[in-house]
Amino acid sequence: MKKRYLMAPGPTPISPQTLLAMASPIIHHRAPEFAEVLAEIRQGLKYLYQTKNEVLIFAASGTGAMEGAITNTLSPDDTALVVRGGKFGERWGEICEAYGVKVVNLDVEWGRAVTPAAVAEQLQLHPEIKAVCVQAHETSTGVKHPVQELGELLKDRPGVILIVDAISALGVYPLPMDEWHLDVLVTGSQKALMLPPGLAFVGLSDKAWEFVKTSRCPKFYFNFAKEKKSLEKNQGAYTSAVSLMIGLKDVLAFIQQETLEKTFAKHWLLSKATKAAVAALGLELFSKDNPSEALTAIQAPAGIDGQQVVKLLREKYGITIAGGQAQAKGKIFRIAHMGYIDSFDVIMAIAALEVVLNELGYKVELGSGVRAAEQILFGEA
Amino acid sequence: MKKRYLMAPGPTPISPQTLLAMASPIIHHRAPEFAEVLAEIRQGLKYLYQTKNEVLIFAASGTGAMEGAITNTLSPDDTALVVRGGKFGERWGEICEAYGVKVVNLDVEWGRAVTPAAVAEQLQLHPEIKAVCVQAHETSTGVKHPVQELGELLKDRPGVILIVDAISALGVYPLPMDEWHLDVLVTGSQKALMLPPGLAFVGLSDKAWEFVKTSRCPKFYFNFAKEKKSLEKNQGAYTSAVSLMIGLKDVLAFIQQETLEKTFAKHWLLSKATKAAVAALGLELFSKDNPSEALTAIQAPAGIDGQQVVKLLREKYGITIAGGQAQAKGKIFRIAHMGYIDSFDVIMAIAALEVVLNELGYKVELGSGVRAAEQILFGEA
Repeated sequence: MKKRYLMAPGPTPISPQTLLAMASPIIHHRAPEFAEVLAEIRQGLKYLYQTKNEVLIFAASGTGAMEGAITNTLSPDDTALVVRGGKFGERWGEICEAYGVKVVNLDVEWGRAVTPAAVAEQLQLHPEIKAVCVQAHETSTGVKHPVQELGELLKDRPGVILIVDAISALGVYPLPMDEWHLDVLVTGSQKALMLPPGLAFVGLSDKAWEFVKTSRCPKFYFNFAKEKKSLEKNQGAYTSAVSLMIGLKDVLAFIQQETLEKTFAKHWLLSKATKAAVAALGLELFSKDNPSEALTAIQAPAGIDGQQVVKLLREKYGITIAGGQAQAKGKIFRIAHMGYIDSFDVIMAIAALEVVLNELGYKVELGSGVRAAEQILFGEA
Repeated sequence: MKKRYLMAPGPTPISPQTLLAMASPIIHHRAPEFAEVLAEIRQGLKYLYQTKNEVLIFAASGTGAMEGAITNTLSPDDTALVVRGGKFGERWGEICEAYGVKVVNLDVEWGRAVTPAAVAEQLQLHPEIKAVCVQAHETSTGVKHPVQELGELLKDRPGVILIVDAISALGVYPLPMDEWHLDVLVTGSQKALMLPPGLAFVGLSDKAWEFVKTSRCPKFYFNFAKEKKSLEKNQGAYTSAVSLMIGLKDVLAFIQQETLEKTFAKHWLLSKATKAAVAALGLELFSKDNPSEALTAIQAPAGIDGQQVVKLLREKYGITIAGGQAQAKGKIFRIAHMGYIDSFDVIMAIAALEVVLNELGYKVELGSGVRAAEQILFGEA
């Protein structure tokens, strides 16, 4: 019976308290006691999103809410600018195409962030663009796109909205929705929210709600207007995923108690420590621009297959990290440090990485990565 | 701290074993150990559906899979016949309309079942009909529609498929998908499957898969062909709702061990006992045709508001049953007996009903309903 450790960028570990809360006897989704749960959740989500507007909740994976973000704001033959700097950027384009929304692709080298200037240029070239679709954090490359600057760029253009996938970003680092003019902000339950997969969330700005009024893409399950109307009565439009919602109530209370500021500071420190360890081991980040606090994406050293690092960690040491996806497969590996993760989880992962790199023939001094991490985590305490 | 009892038609109670299984530490949805879980689930779902074909799994409520059933088989301007004999029948029509599928409504009095002759007549009148959409069991009225006969009617018409919502039916009574020629069969996790809400399932016949090839409705998250291809590699197309899937593996193993035959026999007996108790109390069923084994829908006695029965049971005695929906609101109440429910749960609900009816002024002999139920449940044992 191998002890297992989960350090992948979602699902992330779940606290035993939350697991037990979700194991409570089920309650009925139309009962008054569930309405009370939902009222608390609505308030907690507004805190998390830093928005005055309602945050919608769907029983779905994050992709479902991404689909809804397109189908509720745009219409067939509208044009969307899609920032493609990784696997999840590509998904925005696939969703648009499925619904007949025209796509202008803005391709960004994997590992790089889009520049606001490049987006501005596309808007100039294609005045028909009605939405800019981007990731706050492109999970496949570990890069943060500059959504604050993009919000600035678009805030005074009434005809263009900013649609942001923050599935692996919200709750990790600051993304104040209202202050930064993020018009549609999507996240999921299984990353910083420390829950199992199965819930997806969307916040919309007043400007985005105006787009909803004229959108002509067909939708039913992911109908934002209907869900909002229902939520305002503390109900889901369809059957809520009750057990996950009970967990959600718990983690939102925890985050509010902890405060977003401390939550962001923790992620920042864990990320800094991991990146210092990586440097101490002579490894390079895959993320050339804006490496995120959610995970550390590392280039596999010359001659070593990134997938082998992942496989050996999992099979011999019980540690799950993530490899590269699509064009990055084999070239990188990714250690996540978001959600219910603390200092010694990061230490453990770095120690295991040292061992595995040695075994694969990339010789490092055992303890040298851990030392660098400890200095960041505790040296300045 | 009031002890609570859940006797509503979904979510239904969850066994403590399953609750604890779902409280296990989360595993990664792309890890080999999750692939093993999914392989077991795929096999178990085929047993449950009594089909040789793949059963698709979505992180969503049942409505999501209903939407997919339409959008993956039909195209805008196609025509669907919608049997409307309750709230969920109406939902088929709403989904079709959202996607530009034309609807021919076949309205059936609430509490009655559609007749195969009425469906045949509509097919004659409207040769353009490509799909017949129906509930196996209309949860809002407690009536079973004759889907076996409808399957017979349609099986030799290559241009028409039978789309069946079995959300509160599959696993309750026999619905052998392949044998009965049910082309698209939808269910959810929170009824007979004894799980929290959050998973939806769809089985498709070979004929339905032919329809998928030509369907032009837009879809992305609920893309059946994509999900099937992914499942065949023991993965979900998007992030699986891992904790619910762990529970699903458990309940499917349990149902297979118990056998479908015994599961159906249990529901049949619980239903028969509840209906005998209702008769002994001088009450009448709301379901005039084919009352289902999933729940017993009871007409509120003259002068008594059905919602009051529900409210008093919940607030004073901690028992959650369901009232009537839409046009049946106040006129009926519904006691469910599906899933993780056994004889003494039914006895408890009947006893409480006796007490509450007396309190509301409908005088019954205490114990008379219970006695009738006991005679059915144990008299012939």
